[in-house]
Amino acid sequence: MREKAVVILSGGIDSTTLLYHLRSLGYELKAMSVDYGQRHGGRELAFSRRLCKELQIEQRVIELGGLAALLGNNSLSDPAVGVPEGHYEPATMQLTTVPNRNMILIAIGIAWAVSLKFDAVAFGAHAGQYTPYPDCRPNFAEAMHRAAQVCDWKPMQVLAPFVTWDKGDIVKRGFELGVPFGFTWSCYNGREKHCGRCGTCIDRKEAFAKNSLADPTDYEA
Amino acid sequence: MREKAVVILSGGIDSTTLLYHLRSLGYELKAMSVDYGQRHGGRELAFSRRLCKELQIEQRVIELGGLAALLGNNSLSDPAVGVPEGHYEPATMQLTTVPNRNMILIAIGIAWAVSLKFDAVAFGAHAGQYTPYPDCRPNFAEAMHRAAQVCDWKPMQVLAPFVTWDKGDIVKRGFELGVPFGFTWSCYNGREKHCGRCGTCIDRKEAFAKNSLADPTDYEA
Repeated sequence: MREKAVVILSGGIDSTTLLYHLRSLGYELKAMSVDYGQRHGGRELAFSRRLCKELQIEQRVIELGGLAALLGNNSLSDPAVGVPEGHYEPATMQLTTVPNRNMILIAIGIAWAVSLKFDAVAFGAHAGQYTPYPDCRPNFAEAMHRAAQVCDWKPMQVLAPFVTWDKGDIVKRGFELGVPFGFTWSCYNGREKHCGRCGTCIDRKEAFAKNSLADPTDYEA
Repeated sequence: MREKAVVILSGGIDSTTLLYHLRSLGYELKAMSVDYGQRHGGRELAFSRRLCKELQIEQRVIELGGLAALLGNNSLSDPAVGVPEGHYEPATMQLTTVPNRNMILIAIGIAWAVSLKFDAVAFGAHAGQYTPYPDCRPNFAEAMHRAAQVCDWKPMQVLAPFVTWDKGDIVKRGFELGVPFGFTWSCYNGREKHCGRCGTCIDRKEAFAKNSLADPTDYEA
């Protein structure tokens, strides 16, 4: 029987490649995307909707706007805090972190997976050139998998197949799988084009450059 | 320095006693209550608001109505499914289970605790006379604590001090602490009075009876 997984899909490079990767491994998939009040939510969601439509994968978008007030004091959900530019570094990363974001998304994904009688939830955590987010580390993914094993009568799985890969590895795998990177979104600013200057845009550029692959992204600068 | 904890407060006997219990241990507390579209949400929230006001504990109520659609097919969030009457048993418990509810609440509670620079999240899981909910078991509480230890740069704690207690033990402890049980809410039906017939009302009655304590609850029947 085919394994069945809910993929947490932001519409960025990592989660989009994750969707293609698990599809290539034979998984039956559904996608869960979240609007939790983040500034770039509109662009992310537009790209992920388009992707799921093309792949004929059911997507549910859940509104978690109520979390924004609770989770104030960070640049993704609080319009009063600017998006930092330049490379990720501990000080600026702090600002772009929604506290405990991945645990929240995994927990909700598991809820949906349980109600679907699916087996797993997958998320696109990966290693970075710089200090990783705490909730993207292998020990976090492992701890969540262990919690998922006992959170319901049926042991659920948490999949994070890219957790030891860097973004370059993901882009390389994505090219092999034919991921339409031009229709993925990374930028933390929610403007018409990628800004090309924020930490995630710089990471994005470097992932293509590292593989000597043409970057299909339309940058402002 | 005082330990600081976010208490997940439903307004029922268990979480209300938990609040008093941690307060008696010297914790600085804030309360997080959630409206995730459950039928009895109105009564629960009214009681928990009143309690927090009296204790001068800050309470935040987060709206997770968007989860209801995702988590359909259960009697707490889906008006089309009836509330089962009589003792909890595996078949009826299934209906009153919001999948993975405790992991979701703990994850959001940790997010708030991290942003507050608090140390812990506490939830009122306890053992039962009947098959417990999977996400109320000691191994679940332990697994969530381990995940909390690595979900952020600062290790967070998950507290579940009642996890091996039954409801009778909690009521006994609550009496010692002066918990105003008349202002707690258990019933899964959201009417003016406790119905006295659903599984949680029966558990409530038995917890008082077990301790030979007067039950201050105003039941319909």
